Amino acid sequence: MNNPIKIAVDAMGGENSPYKIVKGIELHNLETDNVFYNIFGDKNIIDPIINSTNLKKEKFQIFHTKNLIKDEDSPLAGAKKGKDTSMWLAIESLKKLESDAIVSAGNTGALFVIAKLNLNMIEKIDKPALSALWPNRNGMNIVLDLGANIECNEKNLVDFSLMGAALHKSLFEKEDPKVALLNIGSEELKGNNVIKNTYQILHDKKNSLYEFKGYIEGNQIMDGNVNVIVTDGFTGNVALKTAEGTANFITSELKQTFNSSVLGKISAFLNLNNLKKFKKKLDPRLYNGAILLGLDKPVIKSHGSTDEIGFANSLRVCEKIIKGRLIEKIKKNII
Amino acid sequence: MNNPIKIAVDAMGGENSPYKIVKGIELHNLETDNVFYNIFGDKNIIDPIINSTNLKKEKFQIFHTKNLIKDEDSPLAGAKKGKDTSMWLAIESLKKLESDAIVSAGNTGALFVIAKLNLNMIEKIDKPALSALWPNRNGMNIVLDLGANIECNEKNLVDFSLMGAALHKSLFEKEDPKVALLNIGSEELKGNNVIKNTYQILHDKKNSLYEFKGYIEGNQIMDGNVNVIVTDGFTGNVALKTAEGTANFITSELKQTFNSSVLGKISAFLNLNNLKKFKKKLDPRLYNGAILLGLDKPVIKSHGSTDEIGFANSLRVCEKIIKGRLIEKIKKNII
Repeated sequence: MNNPIKIAVDAMGGENSPYKIVKGIELHNLETDNVFYNIFGDKNIIDPIINSTNLKKEKFQIFHTKNLIKDEDSPLAGAKKGKDTSMWLAIESLKKLESDAIVSAGNTGALFVIAKLNLNMIEKIDKPALSALWPNRNGMNIVLDLGANIECNEKNLVDFSLMGAALHKSLFEKEDPKVALLNIGSEELKGNNVIKNTYQILHDKKNSLYEFKGYIEGNQIMDGNVNVIVTDGFTGNVALKTAEGTANFITSELKQTFNSSVLGKISAFLNLNNLKKFKKKLDPRLYNGAILLGLDKPVIKSHGSTDEIGFANSLRVCEKIIKGRLIEKIKKNII
Repeated sequence: MNNPIKIAVDAMGGENSPYKIVKGIELHNLETDNVFYNIFGDKNIIDPIINSTNLKKEKFQIFHTKNLIKDEDSPLAGAKKGKDTSMWLAIESLKKLESDAIVSAGNTGALFVIAKLNLNMIEKIDKPALSALWPNRNGMNIVLDLGANIECNEKNLVDFSLMGAALHKSLFEKEDPKVALLNIGSEELKGNNVIKNTYQILHDKKNSLYEFKGYIEGNQIMDGNVNVIVTDGFTGNVALKTAEGTANFITSELKQTFNSSVLGKISAFLNLNNLKKFKKKLDPRLYNGAILLGLDKPVIKSHGSTDEIGFANSLRVCEKIIKGRLIEKIKKNII
């Protein structure tokens, strides 16, 4: 491998870890040949799983530690567990320039606290934001902030626009980022002062990275007319979780519908392939991987409850972010 | 009719009005025998439609006016059109005690401005809130505020809890209202100060109308563990519209799935009844009717794009609110 991309992997966080982590690495490794995995965690548990895979020895290194942060630890308690947890060591390897990005399926709050303790903010960015992928009719949205900041000022929202657009461009290089502000009316009259002021700044501001498309409402998030959606962390978190809840509600109602009669079961069987395609398109594992933006190294959070397929997707996000030079894109376009 | 309930109906607002309004009245009238309709609008257009229905003359009265507020008028421009628009006259009939509640499918903003100009706030309620029905696994939620107030303080959210619970009890008298605050974490630590203070007030406050169940997150709205969901107008509006957008996205993806192959079409046909049941359960017309709470008379807003079935449901909501003595319930339980 010539100068491989190095991903730091916290192997110990989330449900069914490190099994799904190692299996996810195996899956991701099948589709790429220029990634090296720095794996942090308990060697005694990780080794037997790795031995059951086809992963070659030159593709990874294990950094042994028995100490780990539990999913139920408070963010601060997690961070206080010290510098020899798998999560801390993984993040520290970015600081030491031994890895290019970190991914963890562990404790979200602790990941962010430890990342902020160890890594620098990008110059001129005041607050980090949590972003994620969200499907739309034509492809994928980046939505941010999803909960890192309950209250945001104009500068924060302008920064989020830039960082979200840079992330979209890194992940989907053939598409042009189109930024919109989430609001409760399409007229310029609605919304609070922070949103209205941000609208004016983005409207007047020239930039070559993205096009500003104005306001959208919640029902337009998935229309596909824009692909970077900017909001404060409280609103973004409520919107994302409401969408999840609605999707779960509808698919479970649908399941009941098909199970409620013999005819329903037969026709669902006949239609199995189509339903599988439908399910695949909405599979949350496809969108797995939230990205903390604003630090000078990429920090990726995999969903704790995902499986190896979902975790492999987080690794894919990592790889694309590094190859797409996300951090450089942000630095180059900042005001 | 002995002391019939009198509903003031603005016949001229929304798509396909007054046709759908009159047809909606006909539908509603089939299921009730103690409601009288005060219909406001252009008699020359309304009369021929009424003549095509089975509505008896003793069931309604038409208050003729040619003037109307257009859907595209700004709220203020609508209100300024004067006191002889169908909407203004309909609301005024509440003030004159000639009607018990008003329903309109017209301009939402104008409806609220004119209602606030003509009607009194309930004593000790500072701000009105917009509420609506939202399905959950076990029945129906009331969610408020959905956009009347972008920013809310503790007193507002406490008032919304009471008004939402009173509305739920009026509509579903056999169920006990269970109130929750929409937040971004279930731990008491998250959320902004207004939400945390409101939590404490609701937690400490004794009341006989509802049970306070603490925080919920967006993905729990449809779980059915609570049935009155309280939030500020900005968050509520984003949540509601995001849920609508998600539901539309999924059902259109599903439609594509079934149309994408001959086999799919056959099995969808076989399964027609089940799919119809599914569609019916999610039919937005069932939840049609947003209720403005806080004024001393019930003001109901039908969706502008609904049809006669949806409008009939708004009339049903009106009738239940009056029979359920909503306003009395609010007054009796206020701190």
